[in-house]
Amino acid sequence: MRDTIRIGIAGYGNLGRGVEKAIAQSPDLELAAVFTRRRPDQIESEAPVVPVEESGDYRDKIDVMILCGSSANDLPAQGPMFASQFNTVDSFDLHARIPEYFETIDAAARKGSNLSLISTGWDPGLFSMARVLFGSILPMGKTYTFWGRGVSQGHSVAVRRLPGVKQAVQYTVPVPETVERIQQGETPVLTPREQHMRICYVVPEPEADRGAIETAIKTMPGYFADYDTTVHFITEEEFAADHTGMPHGGFVISTGITGGGTKQQAEFRLRLENNPEFTGSVLAAYARAVYRLHREGKTGACTVLDVPLGYLSPDSPPELRKRLL
Amino acid sequence: MRDTIRIGIAGYGNLGRGVEKAIAQSPDLELAAVFTRRRPDQIESEAPVVPVEESGDYRDKIDVMILCGSSANDLPAQGPMFASQFNTVDSFDLHARIPEYFETIDAAARKGSNLSLISTGWDPGLFSMARVLFGSILPMGKTYTFWGRGVSQGHSVAVRRLPGVKQAVQYTVPVPETVERIQQGETPVLTPREQHMRICYVVPEPEADRGAIETAIKTMPGYFADYDTTVHFITEEEFAADHTGMPHGGFVISTGITGGGTKQQAEFRLRLENNPEFTGSVLAAYARAVYRLHREGKTGACTVLDVPLGYLSPDSPPELRKRLL
Repeated sequence: MRDTIRIGIAGYGNLGRGVEKAIAQSPDLELAAVFTRRRPDQIESEAPVVPVEESGDYRDKIDVMILCGSSANDLPAQGPMFASQFNTVDSFDLHARIPEYFETIDAAARKGSNLSLISTGWDPGLFSMARVLFGSILPMGKTYTFWGRGVSQGHSVAVRRLPGVKQAVQYTVPVPETVERIQQGETPVLTPREQHMRICYVVPEPEADRGAIETAIKTMPGYFADYDTTVHFITEEEFAADHTGMPHGGFVISTGITGGGTKQQAEFRLRLENNPEFTGSVLAAYARAVYRLHREGKTGACTVLDVPLGYLSPDSPPELRKRLL
Repeated sequence: MRDTIRIGIAGYGNLGRGVEKAIAQSPDLELAAVFTRRRPDQIESEAPVVPVEESGDYRDKIDVMILCGSSANDLPAQGPMFASQFNTVDSFDLHARIPEYFETIDAAARKGSNLSLISTGWDPGLFSMARVLFGSILPMGKTYTFWGRGVSQGHSVAVRRLPGVKQAVQYTVPVPETVERIQQGETPVLTPREQHMRICYVVPEPEADRGAIETAIKTMPGYFADYDTTVHFITEEEFAADHTGMPHGGFVISTGITGGGTKQQAEFRLRLENNPEFTGSVLAAYARAVYRLHREGKTGACTVLDVPLGYLSPDSPPELRKRLL
């Protein structure tokens, strides 16, 4: 039995680098290779960098491949391809398409006798676990998911595409009064506007019509029209100084009534200074679990809801019972 | 295949009644019988009430027995006895003795080809899960467990035993300044005094020496001497009006550093109006999981760290993937 679990990283953007950093913090995990569609000499990693087409040569050298491509553009094709060759972990996050993606990956993984864990990270992932846990324990309850304060890439891109916008970032922020009400035990039905607000920091082009930009943002259907949106115009220097981080977070909160009419509340909260590094740490821990479950004979697709928590830890079950139970 | 999972409750105190109420909220669970050492006609339950000595007659009528006796007095003997006859779930909470209890239950359950889940509830139980999850994802981190604001039975009893005390309750409360520091991302080493404070409400006997009572409480070794303790003297009426509930709660919080030196924080928090009703709801959900895992062939002892979260839900895996992942 080998001492370490050999990990491959497929895709080397922010998430891939986050996974590499997480592996460096985990003595039982070893980064065997990074796979890329770019020219390998463009990638700076401690590990060997290999063109993605050559991944087949690594079937005996990698225990779990962590897929770090984008859910929209990479995973629908790369996911099944890798799942037929390797055990895999990915962060597929297009909620509506998860059932279909699960079936596709399940078939590919079974064909290769591999195990593939899809859609982990923090949402989907840890927040999904909180939703299922809270809903199972408090069936007469209501569960809310709040995101932020944090950067939404999709909304930031939507603002950047507007004419006259040089640079922009959008923060999703839970509405404080609503959070207060829910923590006090109220269980209201909420509109999107009551739950989150949106704050944009925009660097305009010189000469740009700021009023027109602000109106275009606030009325944008699907992205901003249903929310209270604030637009701040800032300089490039301010943008560089204050808005290039990737903070995020949020919380899942559930209030339920148990038999005697008493209120019970559970809350799971994340405060993240760097979203891709945290997500990478989640993926690395699940790679450990996938390796173990596969050794026990499990194959096909699975999710965070199928994995006992003890499998995430490098420590043995007796050690965990003694120290953390 | 039966439509419902047949549950037995062994021990009918606050926790047993909490489990009964949780079962009433769960259409897939059915209370088959309550087992007691008291005279059955002293127990008011919707279900048949049976002397505990006759439990053997119910081996074919119960899928999971939920053990609601005390960890100090009942479970060490009752646990193995029931585990050899039934699948069981219990809330054994003497942390230091868990490894030994696990081994004893494991042997008994294997002998009966049953599955026994020990030490669930919220701590040990949900808080243990948070500690393992957070520690696995953030290995370069520090995890704290805070209890309260809530009633500690052990400390309340210790005060009630003092001469001159007619009635008393003790609340354990996290120190607000410390909570603030930790939520801000500090990771200090904490003394007990820095982490929790203790607040006592005491109904003195007429003529009792209040100063002597207060001194006896504040200097009591093991219970109060290491904490900042506040003692309030109140009337019997005030006690009855404000201090007969069983609120509790607390939180597990972990702050970790990921590769780039960034701070990441995870927090799991409970705010409970009624501790035994919530604990009963946790035990009921785990009874569902134990039933399913046993049907898959799992036997012996296990803990919350061995159970995939999806097994707690009455919903099917495809339904959970679609709706909650």
